[in-house]
Amino acid sequence: MTEERKISMAVIRRLPRYYRYLGELLDNGVTKISSRELSEKMKVTASQIRQDLNNFGGFGQQGYGYNVEYLHKEIGKILGLENTHSMIIVGVGNLGQALANYTSFEKRGFNLIGLFDVNPRLVGMSIRGIEVLDIDKMEEFVKEHKVDIAILTMPKTKVKETAENLAKWGVRGLWNFSPVDLFVPDGVQVENVHLSHSLMTLAYRINECEGE
Amino acid sequence: MTEERKISMAVIRRLPRYYRYLGELLDNGVTKISSRELSEKMKVTASQIRQDLNNFGGFGQQGYGYNVEYLHKEIGKILGLENTHSMIIVGVGNLGQALANYTSFEKRGFNLIGLFDVNPRLVGMSIRGIEVLDIDKMEEFVKEHKVDIAILTMPKTKVKETAENLAKWGVRGLWNFSPVDLFVPDGVQVENVHLSHSLMTLAYRINECEGE
Repeated sequence: MTEERKISMAVIRRLPRYYRYLGELLDNGVTKISSRELSEKMKVTASQIRQDLNNFGGFGQQGYGYNVEYLHKEIGKILGLENTHSMIIVGVGNLGQALANYTSFEKRGFNLIGLFDVNPRLVGMSIRGIEVLDIDKMEEFVKEHKVDIAILTMPKTKVKETAENLAKWGVRGLWNFSPVDLFVPDGVQVENVHLSHSLMTLAYRINECEGE
Repeated sequence: MTEERKISMAVIRRLPRYYRYLGELLDNGVTKISSRELSEKMKVTASQIRQDLNNFGGFGQQGYGYNVEYLHKEIGKILGLENTHSMIIVGVGNLGQALANYTSFEKRGFNLIGLFDVNPRLVGMSIRGIEVLDIDKMEEFVKEHKVDIAILTMPKTKVKETAENLAKWGVRGLWNFSPVDLFVPDGVQVENVHLSHSLMTLAYRINECEGE
């Protein structure tokens, strides 16, 4: 880690968005940008940007702006994207297959190395050269390979038990798409993605707006 | 709307989680719960719960706790879940198909009425009785049917244009899964779901934890 201080999760959660915008600027050949320009592009205030990036010692020079390549790289380092991460997917239904086909994860060092399912119709099938294995083989696989992240796209009834097992077998990151909140031992990190929450929030905003 | 005051989006974003937990309690036959018990279950502080729910006039009675059914219903009303919402999916690849198969959305009044894609191999296919139509038919469809929400699960190159068109044709809610931030006219609401952001945040937390 480049930085020992604890940075608030609110700031951390904003970093991937900076990373994405800076990556797009780089792709478009932009080498420097002011906080004002970045602010207009990202629709956040320039002071928010300066404040967020100051958490990491700034990177900006007064009157010059930010060096896009340097800032992109530094944020990538902070997020840990200079390391590669190996991933498995547990549950190869539509959502699992969709995520298995996201090649953009790989570009950021997230490498899919295993696919698991209980469904005999899926077992044996290959996605991007990776064979779907029976879930019974998962323990052996996880213990043999270094698995950093397990993507949980399985029914909610089995997810708690699976998460506990994966944690026990040494997986340190769980990316959970089942509609339950997982609480796991210290040292294991969970990101719960609740798609229905996002949809309900959208419904609220639509209805709220109608009332205006 | 039951409530005219503006409630902060931070609170609104926490409501679906309350709604989900209260729904589970109801399913398990629990009729009342104290903020302390709810707090232990949800792993948030009891004072956070009281503060959040006070935004809507409380619902709790000192020494009794919350009436689960009433609170569940009231939060549902606030979120606009007493109304039904019609949805279309634009882009019927793996992710679009996964979302089309989420029957849990329907239970909350989100009804899928249309599927669109450009791919001739997908056009004509049916998912849960809904035929995938060519994207050329979308304008006519949206103008004939009342479409509240368009789910955008299409490549990022086309998503801005599609979003602008849908807004022009009267769709008020866009649930965007493409890795771009959409900025649309006033009166149109967008929820951008950036799966890669969630994954990068997880990577950060794994790496951060290793350093400890």
